[in-house]
Amino acid sequence: MLFYKTKLTNFINSTRFFTHPIQQLIYREHGNPAEVLTLSNKELEFDKLEKQQVLVRWLAAPINPSDINQLQGVYPIKPNLPAVGGNEGCAQVIKVGSDVVEFKENDLIVPAISGIGTWCSHGIYDSKELFLVEGDVKDFIFLSILKTNPSTAYRMLKDFVNLSYGDIVVQNGANSSVGHYVIQICRILGVKTVNVVRDRPQIEILKNKLKISGADEVYTEEEFLTLIRSKKLEAKLALNCVGGKSGMFLSRALELGGTMVTYGGMSKIPVYVATSSVIFANTKSVGFWMSRWYGMRQNIEERKNMYKELIGWYKNGELTLPKYQRKNLEEYKDAINQSTQSDPSSIKSKQIFTKKGNHHYFD
Amino acid sequence: MLFYKTKLTNFINSTRFFTHPIQQLIYREHGNPAEVLTLSNKELEFDKLEKQQVLVRWLAAPINPSDINQLQGVYPIKPNLPAVGGNEGCAQVIKVGSDVVEFKENDLIVPAISGIGTWCSHGIYDSKELFLVEGDVKDFIFLSILKTNPSTAYRMLKDFVNLSYGDIVVQNGANSSVGHYVIQICRILGVKTVNVVRDRPQIEILKNKLKISGADEVYTEEEFLTLIRSKKLEAKLALNCVGGKSGMFLSRALELGGTMVTYGGMSKIPVYVATSSVIFANTKSVGFWMSRWYGMRQNIEERKNMYKELIGWYKNGELTLPKYQRKNLEEYKDAINQSTQSDPSSIKSKQIFTKKGNHHYFD
Repeated sequence: MLFYKTKLTNFINSTRFFTHPIQQLIYREHGNPAEVLTLSNKELEFDKLEKQQVLVRWLAAPINPSDINQLQGVYPIKPNLPAVGGNEGCAQVIKVGSDVVEFKENDLIVPAISGIGTWCSHGIYDSKELFLVEGDVKDFIFLSILKTNPSTAYRMLKDFVNLSYGDIVVQNGANSSVGHYVIQICRILGVKTVNVVRDRPQIEILKNKLKISGADEVYTEEEFLTLIRSKKLEAKLALNCVGGKSGMFLSRALELGGTMVTYGGMSKIPVYVATSSVIFANTKSVGFWMSRWYGMRQNIEERKNMYKELIGWYKNGELTLPKYQRKNLEEYKDAINQSTQSDPSSIKSKQIFTKKGNHHYFD
Repeated sequence: MLFYKTKLTNFINSTRFFTHPIQQLIYREHGNPAEVLTLSNKELEFDKLEKQQVLVRWLAAPINPSDINQLQGVYPIKPNLPAVGGNEGCAQVIKVGSDVVEFKENDLIVPAISGIGTWCSHGIYDSKELFLVEGDVKDFIFLSILKTNPSTAYRMLKDFVNLSYGDIVVQNGANSSVGHYVIQICRILGVKTVNVVRDRPQIEILKNKLKISGADEVYTEEEFLTLIRSKKLEAKLALNCVGGKSGMFLSRALELGGTMVTYGGMSKIPVYVATSSVIFANTKSVGFWMSRWYGMRQNIEERKNMYKELIGWYKNGELTLPKYQRKNLEEYKDAINQSTQSDPSSIKSKQIFTKKGNHHYFD
């Protein structure tokens, strides 16, 4: 297992310096996320920063499935406890230490790495823990989810096979936030998507929603199995976030030499691949983990390019936001419950911590 | 599915030419191997060869699991029916057509491709269907199995990861013929093998046999599961011919970035890989099919090198023959039954068609 160590944001109770009230969602032990989290009101010293430190105000920070797994203690990135929850978000720089040249006041940042804690109103971080994003503050919701969902979709479509106009990508869990961006980026690239979702009472509503986003074909698992039994899809790439038979059906839809990329295991069942697909059709089964990609130094320049392209697509309307709900940090129990409940009849909203109302961000 | 077309060896009943009695194990339909095979006694015209044809006498031809699957109709290489069974063997050249320059009388050959039919006393083939081997006729048993088992082990150890002295390779089905050569080639390369076999009444006899062959460690599936639960093996390469949980245990024994190669599916269960291994440990799951490798033109030169090295290792005693039994073509029902029966309490003998007794080969 990998352990990425991080530390709780420093806060000092002393009143010798100018302090400011801040909020943090903290967990002191692993367990049921809604139970182990507590909202902590503290005074953060705003006056004095270490030379390499940066003081930021968080504008928005979403809840991702990996954040939940981290609270449960089943994710390989394990911050030292107690820790602030959350691994992603968009913040604005308030002040920088004397040696910090990469950031200045009002710059927008996302976490450079996972594990720094983003579910809070403000925080002080080492400059190495932050990554500059060239975006508008009015796009703060998109910027707050930029690091994980659109980037995961982008890399999986770029790094494993060379996709050309007319190629086929097949994916399960197509109504996930990553699935949403896979559909939209494929539409931009001229790549056809064949999308698989679990059957549910309001399946036609979901199918229509995905088709409006740009999905070429949408099937339930059962419909997809019927389809691949009668014809070979010849997909170049399969994206699997479910595992078990769902992933195996994808593998059977691959062309000779095709690749299946697993980036999630929603079913909690291992990755299955048809033996004949692996041996005779020479398909590969690999994994993708966005945090590992970010952890590789050689990717820093490409990370800038990727963000620039994704933000450009968002600004010209080619990428849209997934369905989401804004929540105050005070509403964390509801937000966590919404994130962890399994209600297949609805299209789940992504939960994003931000100040609700007229203000776009914590102040 | 791939279809490699081949044709039944020509035989002419006419007596206008000099003919010679030959035997062929023929199947006219797919089904239960012992039932669909028949021994055919024919007269083969020996006098007149087409310009590109080669007349050979088979010295030995083994039964491989893929031969059985081919008879059953569940293998992607499907010769046109009626067809002669068998895809591998060693033969000696009797006579060549006027345009054949690659072979001369007494040369030893193996099939260049699968599907040409080797379970026969003699055959006439297009020269492109044959591949010259530089070996001694006295080594005909080893040469008859060279194309599949030792070559599969060799390629899987050479083509997927760079193995260095002290690296670990883990494999299941370690008592298979391929497993036998994996153990021996790893010993030659200074690579440690951790071997997994199914539990059986005579397990200690089997463990000792594998250790004598050079296996560093041998475990039953249950023992192996206990082992990987308590410590990470950090294997660079896993070789899977079983599938299901057995393969999944191998995947959990891989180091970061390690590779699992699947070359068989003895359990008839899909390939399983632990999701955490794929995503967080960045392991790959790929397949290997010896027939596909042989079918790639760019591999012809490397094929010669591989055979030279394998034959050299056999001649200096570093590679040994697996346990085998010689059978006449007349004994085909017994040979097929021995090949298809599942008796986990014994160490199964590979069945090899050859003339029994003092003669080393059909005459």
